[in-house]
Amino acid sequence: MGTFRCDISMSADGYVAGPNQSEENPLGEGGERLHDWVVSLAVWREAHERQGGEVNASSAIVEEARENVGAAVMGRNMFGPIGGGDWGDGQWKGWWGDNPPFHYDVFVVTHHAREPVEMDGGTTFHFVTDGIERALQRAKASANGRDVVLLGGGQIINQYLAAGLLDELELHIVPVLLGGGSRLFEDLGGQVGLELARAVDAPGVTHVKYLPRAV
Amino acid sequence: MGTFRCDISMSADGYVAGPNQSEENPLGEGGERLHDWVVSLAVWREAHERQGGEVNASSAIVEEARENVGAAVMGRNMFGPIGGGDWGDGQWKGWWGDNPPFHYDVFVVTHHAREPVEMDGGTTFHFVTDGIERALQRAKASANGRDVVLLGGGQIINQYLAAGLLDELELHIVPVLLGGGSRLFEDLGGQVGLELARAVDAPGVTHVKYLPRAV
Repeated sequence: MGTFRCDISMSADGYVAGPNQSEENPLGEGGERLHDWVVSLAVWREAHERQGGEVNASSAIVEEARENVGAAVMGRNMFGPIGGGDWGDGQWKGWWGDNPPFHYDVFVVTHHAREPVEMDGGTTFHFVTDGIERALQRAKASANGRDVVLLGGGQIINQYLAAGLLDELELHIVPVLLGGGSRLFEDLGGQVGLELARAVDAPGVTHVKYLPRAV
Repeated sequence: MGTFRCDISMSADGYVAGPNQSEENPLGEGGERLHDWVVSLAVWREAHERQGGEVNASSAIVEEARENVGAAVMGRNMFGPIGGGDWGDGQWKGWWGDNPPFHYDVFVVTHHAREPVEMDGGTTFHFVTDGIERALQRAKASANGRDVVLLGGGQIINQYLAAGLLDELELHIVPVLLGGGSRLFEDLGGQVGLELARAVDAPGVTHVKYLPRAV
């Protein structure tokens, strides 16, 4: 049986996206700085069909996160424009172009029912309107024994943590203060316990893996 | 010239003390869990005249933080009961007993003027009513070339960060969610830059050292 895990970049002040997310600025103000550490890596650039890049202590972390993944879950804010809600017209197909970098089934938790959208390269977006537990169940069935990853954003990660359903949470903590935006761990005090599995020091980022459990 | 530095335990959700701090519970609800990692160490127990304890990757971090310190600064909430404000009667001498574990001059930033309080073992509490810059200036003079440490709490650390006066900030990030309390980095987005100096993996805690600068 695979694990259900999440890895996400977080600012030192606890945000996984900056303030004022919009269609023009899906990561929020300053949010692109959360990902500076990864887009400089050869292992990331290769997967996005770009040349060059660095190899450092983060490379193995990214490779590990990518291994053995069979399906994914994401929140509706990550899939589409915040407040748009007009996916029903079949035009919006995510931020990732015709050939998204997933190459497996991605289950989008939303209130808007929609037929699955099959993309190039093996990615199909499925829209799940009956809650986070059902989305995980369907992703596990699709993953067929491999791991399921939770792609974000912050709100759905907090929901899965509160429900005690997430097995692993790896934070990539970056030396940036965003001062606002989507906060991880919001209102979870007393509901969730964390066990520290390991931390890894790397250039411009600290990787910290927790094993969450409901308390 | 010594550095001005701070090291403090922080929950994974960004709090350096729990909610509802009081005279009975100065660290707030659950706040004592922030320090589990350190009170188990031999290096801490020795300094507090207790036997036994562990030696692990945190030991060197604690020793390093304690080296070459000539004076300290703390906020008024750390020195005395929250909302008490009655130090003027000369009764309150801090939480640390007759022989506090500092053994140098400690400058308490407060609105309440008071004569210095000389304790056993070389600690003297001085009360500074003309602001954080003046407190630092006096502490540096007392330290005479050695380092000055900022002891806390969260509010005064945020003030020194906003003022661009802190040279080093080492966080001891513990796998605990407090859900409320005194938040580090509150409202500092866009005001403060951080450079990651190093991270150290240890049992039950991740040590992350940042070099802050005003932006």
